[in-house]
Amino acid sequence: MSAWVDDANASLLTDLYELTMAAGYVDAGIAEGEAAFELFVRRLPPSRRFLVACGIEQALDHLTSLRFDDDALRYLRSLDLFDEAFLDRLRELRFTGDVHAVAEGELVFGGEPILRVTAPLIEAQLVETFLIATVGFQTMVASKAARVAIGARGRDFADFSARRDHGPDAALKAARAAYVGGAASTSNVLAGREYGIPLSGTMAHAYVMAFADEREAFRRFAAAFPGRAVLLVDTYDTVRGAERVVEVAREGADVTAVRLDSGDLDALSRQVRRILDDGGLGHVRILASGDLDEHRVAALVDAGAPIDAFGVGTRMGTSEDAPSLGMVYKLVADPSGPRMKRSEGKVTVPGCKQVHRFGDHDVLARHDERVDGGRPLLDLVVDGGERVAPPAPLAAARDRCAAAVAALPEPFRRLDGDAAWDVRVSPALAELQREVEARLAAG
Amino acid sequence: MSAWVDDANASLLTDLYELTMAAGYVDAGIAEGEAAFELFVRRLPPSRRFLVACGIEQALDHLTSLRFDDDALRYLRSLDLFDEAFLDRLRELRFTGDVHAVAEGELVFGGEPILRVTAPLIEAQLVETFLIATVGFQTMVASKAARVAIGARGRDFADFSARRDHGPDAALKAARAAYVGGAASTSNVLAGREYGIPLSGTMAHAYVMAFADEREAFRRFAAAFPGRAVLLVDTYDTVRGAERVVEVAREGADVTAVRLDSGDLDALSRQVRRILDDGGLGHVRILASGDLDEHRVAALVDAGAPIDAFGVGTRMGTSEDAPSLGMVYKLVADPSGPRMKRSEGKVTVPGCKQVHRFGDHDVLARHDERVDGGRPLLDLVVDGGERVAPPAPLAAARDRCAAAVAALPEPFRRLDGDAAWDVRVSPALAELQREVEARLAAG
Repeated sequence: MSAWVDDANASLLTDLYELTMAAGYVDAGIAEGEAAFELFVRRLPPSRRFLVACGIEQALDHLTSLRFDDDALRYLRSLDLFDEAFLDRLRELRFTGDVHAVAEGELVFGGEPILRVTAPLIEAQLVETFLIATVGFQTMVASKAARVAIGARGRDFADFSARRDHGPDAALKAARAAYVGGAASTSNVLAGREYGIPLSGTMAHAYVMAFADEREAFRRFAAAFPGRAVLLVDTYDTVRGAERVVEVAREGADVTAVRLDSGDLDALSRQVRRILDDGGLGHVRILASGDLDEHRVAALVDAGAPIDAFGVGTRMGTSEDAPSLGMVYKLVADPSGPRMKRSEGKVTVPGCKQVHRFGDHDVLARHDERVDGGRPLLDLVVDGGERVAPPAPLAAARDRCAAAVAALPEPFRRLDGDAAWDVRVSPALAELQREVEARLAAG
Repeated sequence: MSAWVDDANASLLTDLYELTMAAGYVDAGIAEGEAAFELFVRRLPPSRRFLVACGIEQALDHLTSLRFDDDALRYLRSLDLFDEAFLDRLRELRFTGDVHAVAEGELVFGGEPILRVTAPLIEAQLVETFLIATVGFQTMVASKAARVAIGARGRDFADFSARRDHGPDAALKAARAAYVGGAASTSNVLAGREYGIPLSGTMAHAYVMAFADEREAFRRFAAAFPGRAVLLVDTYDTVRGAERVVEVAREGADVTAVRLDSGDLDALSRQVRRILDDGGLGHVRILASGDLDEHRVAALVDAGAPIDAFGVGTRMGTSEDAPSLGMVYKLVADPSGPRMKRSEGKVTVPGCKQVHRFGDHDVLARHDERVDGGRPLLDLVVDGGERVAPPAPLAAARDRCAAAVAALPEPFRRLDGDAAWDVRVSPALAELQREVEARLAAG
């Protein structure tokens, strides 16, 4: 009974103006001319040194499955805004264009296209809202997760954000993006199934409370999950909880790890480590969770807190310090040639572009321009409406991200500072921009 | 091909620990005992004076459609964590319990239950992640939207957040929540269809750019949507854009409104108003959008900017200043009686509770306690697994919210300040809390 977005209704997950504009294009006879739109973030949030491209697979799925079914057309007709000629065009609409995109897990910077759609104007226009919502959200979370990975200095962290993400489907996609950004695992079972992400999980306070006492809860859980029991020790008192872990282990319980979820994690982890070690449980690992982000994780690691792995939730899954990206999708070319926008503070660079990555800078160039020595980031991934290759395994995107972050100069691998990547505009692109500006000023 | 959350797989949209705990309950023979969990927010974010309950319908849909299908069971079996007895229990699992909830659109405060689940422990436990993700997210957005409504001082505002929400499904639900909180309309077409929310939309810069010049774009759009043409005037230059609106209107174009989307909205709206009025277009309305939130809307209205309606996006749909709520779902009773949690900073009040609303305070009482003079907020909405009544129209929730906000004392209808609602614990509930604390301390 619930309304969910799915492939069948996603064509309606769009701002109304995409449809009114599309109808306007049909009316004006320009809907079928080829246009190019680029998806990019103008400026990085102040707290980000780089972004991690993510969500592109879902964007391509949307494009290649795009259609308006009878239910959609019936609703649109009921709005009394559209004529039958336009609704007929929607009925037959399929995505027939090309898409160039950077690979998931690749790093991108301000002004650099993540994805370019080249298609008849009506097709390219209608997908704007969906593409921004999909790529913007996952890129935001992957970028945050990559910062947590930096803070964790090689220790593992798990995505525990499911309950705090912006609804159940956001939780599914946030787990995916967090994995690309560097999370080792997720607590989200559906994400485990859909994306093959390793699962991690412990117990909640409710479990401990469901038994007459904490000792009994620990005993029961360890018996039910031998070799995989992670016991939550802070339901009543963290130190006493750790002592009870030692007691049940002495009785024979097979304990894998303990989890701390409240209080001063640095001090408590040291106390708990001592209690476990003194109790002969040197092999039992300590996990920590509770309002963690990259800064808190880094502070704990750098202080030498004996925490083996982290569960990171809210602040990562909602990208709390930057809960949106100013991602935009802009017309850069149409049958009349390269186009640009000139609103105050929102100037765009005209024409189809390629990004060339060098060790310490990028060159933003015309798409068909030769630039030697760098690595071009945008590849053709949809050709005439068909995927060029099947989706790569998600772990490849995760590896790509880790390698790309490791290759960054040191200032870009710090959690603070204001290092800004040098994105140079090629001479040919700069010349094009001058030409289009001159044309606009004259017009 | 895309993975989407839907009613069929939502049982897996859960943290792994819900399943390991449930298996532990089955193993310990306590899974079928009746437990009660309450869903609430411990403390409001500092920038919130109240919350607007929302997302409850989706929570109830989830409970009443809960099941683990063969695909889900196959995946769970593959994890090698669960025995067949537990998987058999999951196969037959349906929600058989009761739910008490406040009505959508009702205001709630820190520590007050929004929803209570009373069911066999296994059923009540497994739905935790989903319920928090659903009710927490929509409550967060509805609460933010209600603040925008306060700032708009009676002017209309539309939800324009779709592209900035945390993915397409978050966009669908954010539109719903924004409407409950007071938005007059949404740009999100699917939300219009699914929830009957009025749609609003204009055009984007890409439309203007798709024509040889701005005048031609305006002409075409007005011709295509007579009586409903909202023209975006800032693609090149806002003032010149407004002048072109006057020109095309002189030629006969039927223009309904103009939209400003960049620059100094106060100054530009005055200039544009003057141009329109001087051009005989006194009837053409001015809409404004662009990085708006409750504070900016209030500042524009209070300054007397001649803006008739606002489009509010990112900051509302992501609840940018408070992008998560600390919503929790806590065991408050089991077969042994009332329960509470005592972790540092996370103490819960034991037992099933009712909230009684008075004009200037609430009384949090035992659920079966008589409290005279107030209005009890929690009603039975699911009885033995069945909805007591069909869902109410969403507009009723919106009306309820508007009336509840209007009835608040003035300090709670301000956008700043630190007014904190007086939530009193009834003597009987306080006595129960002392009893349970004493029992825990003795244990």
